Amino acid sequence: MTAMETIPNLLAQRAYLTPNRVAFIFEDQEVTFLELYEQAQIVAEQLTTLGVKKEDHVGVLLRNHIDMVFILFGIQLLGSIAVFLNNRLTTSEIEWQIKDSNTILLVTEEKYEPIFSGLTGPIMLKHELFKQKRTAIIVPEEISLNSICSIMYTSGTTGTPKGVLQTYGNHWWSATGAALNLGIYDTDRWICAVPLFHISGFSILMRSIIYGMTVILHEGFDEEKVLKEIIHNRASIISVVSTMLIRLLDKMNAPLPSTFRCALAGGGPLSKHLLEECVKKNVPVYQTYGMTETASQVVTLSPEDSLAKLGSAGKPLFPVQLKIKNGQDTEAKPLESGEIFIKGPNVTIGYLNRPSVTNEKIQSGWLSTGDIGYLDKDGFLFVQDRRSDLIISGGENIYPAEIEGILQSHEQVLEAGVIGIEDLEWGQVPVAIVVKKAGTSLTREQLIDFSLGKLAKYKVPKKIVFIDELPRNAAKKLVRHKLKSWWKETQTLG
Amino acid sequence: MTAMETIPNLLAQRAYLTPNRVAFIFEDQEVTFLELYEQAQIVAEQLTTLGVKKEDHVGVLLRNHIDMVFILFGIQLLGSIAVFLNNRLTTSEIEWQIKDSNTILLVTEEKYEPIFSGLTGPIMLKHELFKQKRTAIIVPEEISLNSICSIMYTSGTTGTPKGVLQTYGNHWWSATGAALNLGIYDTDRWICAVPLFHISGFSILMRSIIYGMTVILHEGFDEEKVLKEIIHNRASIISVVSTMLIRLLDKMNAPLPSTFRCALAGGGPLSKHLLEECVKKNVPVYQTYGMTETASQVVTLSPEDSLAKLGSAGKPLFPVQLKIKNGQDTEAKPLESGEIFIKGPNVTIGYLNRPSVTNEKIQSGWLSTGDIGYLDKDGFLFVQDRRSDLIISGGENIYPAEIEGILQSHEQVLEAGVIGIEDLEWGQVPVAIVVKKAGTSLTREQLIDFSLGKLAKYKVPKKIVFIDELPRNAAKKLVRHKLKSWWKETQTLG
Repeated sequence: MTAMETIPNLLAQRAYLTPNRVAFIFEDQEVTFLELYEQAQIVAEQLTTLGVKKEDHVGVLLRNHIDMVFILFGIQLLGSIAVFLNNRLTTSEIEWQIKDSNTILLVTEEKYEPIFSGLTGPIMLKHELFKQKRTAIIVPEEISLNSICSIMYTSGTTGTPKGVLQTYGNHWWSATGAALNLGIYDTDRWICAVPLFHISGFSILMRSIIYGMTVILHEGFDEEKVLKEIIHNRASIISVVSTMLIRLLDKMNAPLPSTFRCALAGGGPLSKHLLEECVKKNVPVYQTYGMTETASQVVTLSPEDSLAKLGSAGKPLFPVQLKIKNGQDTEAKPLESGEIFIKGPNVTIGYLNRPSVTNEKIQSGWLSTGDIGYLDKDGFLFVQDRRSDLIISGGENIYPAEIEGILQSHEQVLEAGVIGIEDLEWGQVPVAIVVKKAGTSLTREQLIDFSLGKLAKYKVPKKIVFIDELPRNAAKKLVRHKLKSWWKETQTLG
Repeated sequence: MTAMETIPNLLAQRAYLTPNRVAFIFEDQEVTFLELYEQAQIVAEQLTTLGVKKEDHVGVLLRNHIDMVFILFGIQLLGSIAVFLNNRLTTSEIEWQIKDSNTILLVTEEKYEPIFSGLTGPIMLKHELFKQKRTAIIVPEEISLNSICSIMYTSGTTGTPKGVLQTYGNHWWSATGAALNLGIYDTDRWICAVPLFHISGFSILMRSIIYGMTVILHEGFDEEKVLKEIIHNRASIISVVSTMLIRLLDKMNAPLPSTFRCALAGGGPLSKHLLEECVKKNVPVYQTYGMTETASQVVTLSPEDSLAKLGSAGKPLFPVQLKIKNGQDTEAKPLESGEIFIKGPNVTIGYLNRPSVTNEKIQSGWLSTGDIGYLDKDGFLFVQDRRSDLIISGGENIYPAEIEGILQSHEQVLEAGVIGIEDLEWGQVPVAIVVKKAGTSLTREQLIDFSLGKLAKYKVPKKIVFIDELPRNAAKKLVRHKLKSWWKETQTLG
């Protein structure tokens, strides 16, 4: 590794530079960077007792809690790699990811017994972990930006989840790129009320130690608690998805104090009505576009542009390049649509154990996002279609192909198409259009029951409609946008 | 080059992201980032007409002026490399650096005719450059962090100037490392009243485009003008050396407005008296330690620690590691003195055309600074002796060996030793202790006259004393600290 790829061990350096600064506030507990380092070191030593070594994969199935922070940084101090497991998945989904990632130990907690009780590999409950003996370790003084820090699963158009490899460099460049856009104020306190197992949450954790910034951690999103932090505890930034923002605005009686400087909103552009509400109530909103493969936001729209560039995702972060391609080798002109490509030091080095998908998706450093969009004449990005068929429901990504695969595994189903439809509460929800095998008697309820054990609840179709034939193109590929227009027509009529 | 070593072309990206933000204020002129980009592109196209190509070395002998900014960024857009020439050097010093660096063209201005008229290589006056025809170029969309951006000469203990290679990555990591320490506020305006040919000035230029921050450029340091910028034009940061700070405090009648947030002070620790003055007058001072080889500051002391840790240089920037070695392979314990070593992605890749010096000074990424110091129990650095014999006079580095070499080249001089003595105005000034050859009649005045053509004025000894023999150790190496104590005794008595 060259000198430019080596930096000090992040948490150790932060504890050295600003030991007494508050790193995390969780409920009534305040933890300084030195305390965080000490706690993480204890966890690292306890994991060592359990046989975990450098570069081992450690599964993490936990809820947002200060314990989860200690465990995640403990894994980092050891040089092992955290495999983030979405705690809303089913047992079989988790089992698959654990196997695929070669995870040697799963750290979880009692709350998730319904999920982990059916798993086959080694499991350690966090309160048991914290009782382990410690085996002394020497924390490495430096890390390579090319080493892998974390693995998060994402499905994409194929329907099979793939483990995205996130290096320390990916997180570093994401954090510094975001800082160059949003600024760094010594009064900053970032509310993390999004899941830590998502890149939206984990990236806040990484920013905390890189910036030396206080993070206020919430177990989940509660608009009243969030408002309290902003009004009484000088919280200055929060990461949200649009449903959270709507709930927040709903509860506000007065404009926010001037100490609040930024709501970072992911998951698709906000409506004009919502943006106008934000202006009225003094909520500066930065809309963002990003994905697990880019270690969080890569394109953002500043509050001053949000109404003039309504519907835009904004401009890239400083270290990021953006390109629209409307052919194999042709770049689109302004206002021409095409596929969005992204390049930058925050882009993943690839997918775990999937060299061919990696080579296909990342060429000469350019990540093919699968999303469709265009740049306007000022270079603002407009995302028209997320990965053609990606459904974003309350901040969770849902890939139709994955649900279709499950539905089609039912013996009475011939074929199935899944699309996202608009929903006031969740933004979007998945619905399924299903073709039964001839002469079978399958009911909607049976099919939903069948899905429930196999799919996380938020992925189970909210509605199922039976149909005679699905629209397919010449290559027999499902044409989802036709399915969408068909849905709109029939459901409006019916 | 790997994806993590590639980022967008800095100035082109900045002009795309924030075209209308003010980049530079110089006298009555305001230049936005888009205008800066356009002007730099014109210069790049004019240099192309003159035959300058990618990776060519272009000498720059200019005073602080918006024109210099255009020229420096024009060189960058072309992918050529700026060789920074200190405009206080003599013709022969400059001639040497131009030859050593293989500079193909010197860009200068009429003011420096006394210097450049004696030079042998191709010269272009800036107002002539600006009249050249333009040859269209395509600005590269991206740059490698490993490419060389700039070359600055420094002498070190050997006395022979060496060209320090500074990559884009060095400047990038320096800028982001500084940001993580000082923060980035969207109201920031940085006064640059230090020379742009020094790393202290040039690093402000690079921060401007990386942060998207306004820089207020001054031709030189004038305390009244600086105060005006702070009080009336919301300037928030200034880089200074201690003499400037003293002059600034002297002129202040009232505490500075709260918009002013930082004086970044290089060139050795400040006195207790000066720090107390700063506290009284609301001037938050960040003391810094750094060098050309580290692309500016690497260790800083925050205002809140400055009195408790009086005399300390502070703690490293986040990406920087610090080590004190008191033996070939032994690291010093806290409070033990030794040589200061620095590692980080901002450390130079080496010296131009000097692989053996590079290998000697940088091992496994660790730069041997030649400076002596220790860490206290909290990890704060105390610099005890800068490169043993480095003299810092009004912010300029003076290397005794270089002056000794010139003095010894006089036919009547047997040997000479140069040391720095304290000076109220300049911090330090050089004085020489000289042994004449037997039977010669050399006078002090003759020796000073002899030096004037060969050494920049600030390097010419302020005093010359003749002596019979210089203190040398067993290896016949000059023992400068003995010379210093001898000086103190005799000069106090005398």
